[in-house]
Amino acid sequence: MKAIKRNGDRTWVFHQTKILGTGVVVGPKEKEGPLGDDFPISYDDIYIGQDTFEKAERQLLAEAAKTAITNAKLKEDQIDLFLAGDLLNQIVSANFVAKELELPFMGMFGACSTSMETLATASALVSSGFSNYVLAGCCSHNATAERQFRYPTEYGGQKPPYSQWTATGAGAAVVGKGTSGIMVTHATIGKVVDMGIKDPFDMGRAMAPAAADTIAAHLQDTQRSPHEYDLIVTGDLANVGSPILIQLLRERNIDIANLHRDCGSMLYDPSQEVNAGGSGCAASAIVTYGHLLKEMERGKYQRILVVATGALFSPVTFQQGESIPCTAHAVAFERKEAGEENG
Amino acid sequence: MKAIKRNGDRTWVFHQTKILGTGVVVGPKEKEGPLGDDFPISYDDIYIGQDTFEKAERQLLAEAAKTAITNAKLKEDQIDLFLAGDLLNQIVSANFVAKELELPFMGMFGACSTSMETLATASALVSSGFSNYVLAGCCSHNATAERQFRYPTEYGGQKPPYSQWTATGAGAAVVGKGTSGIMVTHATIGKVVDMGIKDPFDMGRAMAPAAADTIAAHLQDTQRSPHEYDLIVTGDLANVGSPILIQLLRERNIDIANLHRDCGSMLYDPSQEVNAGGSGCAASAIVTYGHLLKEMERGKYQRILVVATGALFSPVTFQQGESIPCTAHAVAFERKEAGEENG
Repeated sequence: MKAIKRNGDRTWVFHQTKILGTGVVVGPKEKEGPLGDDFPISYDDIYIGQDTFEKAERQLLAEAAKTAITNAKLKEDQIDLFLAGDLLNQIVSANFVAKELELPFMGMFGACSTSMETLATASALVSSGFSNYVLAGCCSHNATAERQFRYPTEYGGQKPPYSQWTATGAGAAVVGKGTSGIMVTHATIGKVVDMGIKDPFDMGRAMAPAAADTIAAHLQDTQRSPHEYDLIVTGDLANVGSPILIQLLRERNIDIANLHRDCGSMLYDPSQEVNAGGSGCAASAIVTYGHLLKEMERGKYQRILVVATGALFSPVTFQQGESIPCTAHAVAFERKEAGEENG
Repeated sequence: MKAIKRNGDRTWVFHQTKILGTGVVVGPKEKEGPLGDDFPISYDDIYIGQDTFEKAERQLLAEAAKTAITNAKLKEDQIDLFLAGDLLNQIVSANFVAKELELPFMGMFGACSTSMETLATASALVSSGFSNYVLAGCCSHNATAERQFRYPTEYGGQKPPYSQWTATGAGAAVVGKGTSGIMVTHATIGKVVDMGIKDPFDMGRAMAPAAADTIAAHLQDTQRSPHEYDLIVTGDLANVGSPILIQLLRERNIDIANLHRDCGSMLYDPSQEVNAGGSGCAASAIVTYGHLLKEMERGKYQRILVVATGALFSPVTFQQGESIPCTAHAVAFERKEAGEENG
């Protein structure tokens, strides 16, 4: 057991814990974006062959989950636990997929940070031996999110240029034990940070301080410098939040400018009219599981840190005049060759 | 490490993991009920001194959390992790309390099963050494739940006699290591079970099969007979769901009739006009943390199993004609005297 135990630490260290397989399913806009070649499973129609957007969102997660299990070379009944969440009220997408999969299930909610929240928890349960195989996943859908958080798409509401585009897709990963491949080495759990932003379109600006807090805590806990990572990737700060993050970390004498990328900015081309970039649970899940881990397998990166950010508000809290509490959960990935010692 | 590893098992076995302290805060109706003497912190007014019901719900959880930390003889900054959830969209009660507490936080959603979902996860993280002290909690409020899931109370909608009354309150517990006191010995994670019930007032009937499934799995995994428990307590099946549970288990040759009680039925007196009984995240949390664990400390019970049930639907899934998926998570508690061997 290598868990760090000092009080105040927020970072878990995992032992021989790896990604056994991933599954990613995306909508048309995500397929057309710059990372489309890394998303082999996609749909041309945002209804995903279903009769409601809610069922479409569920279908994305169900298919991503089953793909992850297949890619892990496992059968569904070998999975000990399914950890999942989404943006919908009462996380009904995850609940209904759990019913379909017939697996022991725990629902989690961290808004767009759910991708790394579920993966961190899955890794802790596998590392400690409580579970052999845990499936972690999340999903979002542009049309379900628009009508729940803002207005139905058909209403045609104007959006400010700092707004973001909720990604349509789902990502899942199976975590298990192993000594080589894509290892999950650490997770740093976020605190809830609220700098008083009240505009629900301005999520990148609201979430940047939470990402800065978690990255600083991760580097402190692990005694690593940022440059020990090939990349530090945030979930969905997009084009407005990203420069704020870099500035906030500079004020703490941490420079990640050359290492930083953002899933929300990577997912779409500016010509796709997504304003500041992508968002939604799926953004960090599909970019991480679909693209970044493949880049690691292809040898492009050895060690990366994925910091999934989440805005923990609801339309009711906004209407009641509350500001937007935000969080960020970080997970470190490292590629280990077979025979290499597991650090 | 005593975690059970056989595939298909859903039961975790904890090592030297105990309840260090609990905190319970209730509204007026819960204080007036049969367990009122075990709820020293209560409010006469359902606004809990706040100007909205949502803020009232938050205040309940914040106060329960702080009370649990104080009763565990710890300071807030000694808590490694806060795991919490509630019934509101995007679990905003938990999110806003996490912001106030400034602790590393992960949100969980299991509807009324959130009480034992958070406690099971907390116990796994403490047992494995990933965290020293984890705070687990949840809350619900009658007026916020009514207006979100059904109609605002002021509308005066009639309810069928099998409907349940959402409890106003919050419960929290701090989990840590130890060898005597109230030990958390096992947790069995629920699958999602859906028998096709579509009436959102009929939750006891919808949830009973999930409770039966989890209890049967727990007894199978632990190779225990029901009578090795002094009590098997369900979350909130109330007066309609409880006899169904007993019948469903009889069909599997498991007899719990003499051992079974239900938090939703225990919380109110029939004269309090709650129809079939109590429900809501808070029901199982306040009855378990406020009453049952105190009864164990008073020597009335040696070993109990608490099976928190949850209905994982939303108003949207109901309106779209879907049935109600349900789950149940079980946690076993055992009183150990100092010096007694920890099993």
